[in-house]
Amino acid sequence: MTVAHDRKQRLARFIREVWDEGDADAADAHVADAYVIRHDPGDPWDGMTLDLAGFKDRVRRSRAAFPDQRFDIQGLFADGDEVVMTWLWAATHGGDLPGFPATGKTVRMSGATVYSFDEEERLTGHWQITDRLGVYQQLQRNLAPDV
Amino acid sequence: MTVAHDRKQRLARFIREVWDEGDADAADAHVADAYVIRHDPGDPWDGMTLDLAGFKDRVRRSRAAFPDQRFDIQGLFADGDEVVMTWLWAATHGGDLPGFPATGKTVRMSGATVYSFDEEERLTGHWQITDRLGVYQQLQRNLAPDV
Repeated sequence: MTVAHDRKQRLARFIREVWDEGDADAADAHVADAYVIRHDPGDPWDGMTLDLAGFKDRVRRSRAAFPDQRFDIQGLFADGDEVVMTWLWAATHGGDLPGFPATGKTVRMSGATVYSFDEEERLTGHWQITDRLGVYQQLQRNLAPDV
Repeated sequence: MTVAHDRKQRLARFIREVWDEGDADAADAHVADAYVIRHDPGDPWDGMTLDLAGFKDRVRRSRAAFPDQRFDIQGLFADGDEVVMTWLWAATHGGDLPGFPATGKTVRMSGATVYSFDEEERLTGHWQITDRLGVYQQLQRNLAPDV
C-alpha cells in the first residue's frame, strides 16, 4: 500500500470515528498536538490553533446541534503532505443553534477540506470551504410554519 | 516534468487566460467537447453538461458583473485524473446582479474546485464549493448607505 492510500484510509477512519460517531477521544490517535484551522469561513474556530483538548471541545460543540451527522465522502485526493476530501453531509437538526431552535428536520450540506499530515501521519490542520448559505436557507425553511 | 506537474501548470494557465483575463475563446485549447458541472451549489449551470459554445457563454455571463476578477490560487493537488484547486478570489462589483446593482466596491470569495482531465489533457468538468454566503453578505453591506 502506498503512503497516499494509507492516508486516505486513515482520514476516512478519522471522519467516521470522530465526526460521524462523535467519539471525540478518538482524536488522540489522529490529531497532532497543534491543529491549525487555516481557513474555514463561518467556523467559530477559523484562524485558531487548537491543542488536543481544544480540538475535542470543537468536536463536541460542533456536533451538539447535529448529533446524528454523517459525512458521505465523495472524493479523496492525495498530493504531497495533504489529502483533499470532497463531501456531502446530512444531519437531523436535533439541538438549538443561535436563532434556530431545533426542528428535528434534516439538513444537508456539501464542502471540500484540505487536511495536512505530519511525518507521524497525524493531522496538523485544515483549509475548508462549506456551502453555509445552503445550510442557512434550509434552517430558515425548516423553521417556517408548514403550509 | 511529471503529468501531475504539467496538469497543474495547464490548469493555472486556463484560470488566468479564461477566468482572470476573460478570453473565453482560450477555452478552445483547454476544455473538452462536453464539460459537466457535476456539483456547484448556487451556480446557474449546476448539473448541466455544456458544449464549448455553452462553456464560453457561461464564462462571459459569469464575468459580466465582475470584469476585473482575479483568482489567487492557494493550492493545487493532483491525484488520478483530477486536480483540486483551492483559491481566493477578488473582483470589483462593476456590473448589475439580480437584486444587487453595481457598486464599484470590491468583493472577495474563497472556494475549492475539483477539475477532471481526459486523456488529451482537456477539462471534462468540475465539482465545486464556493463560500457564496460570504459573497451575499458583502454585496448587502456594499449596497447599504455609507454611515
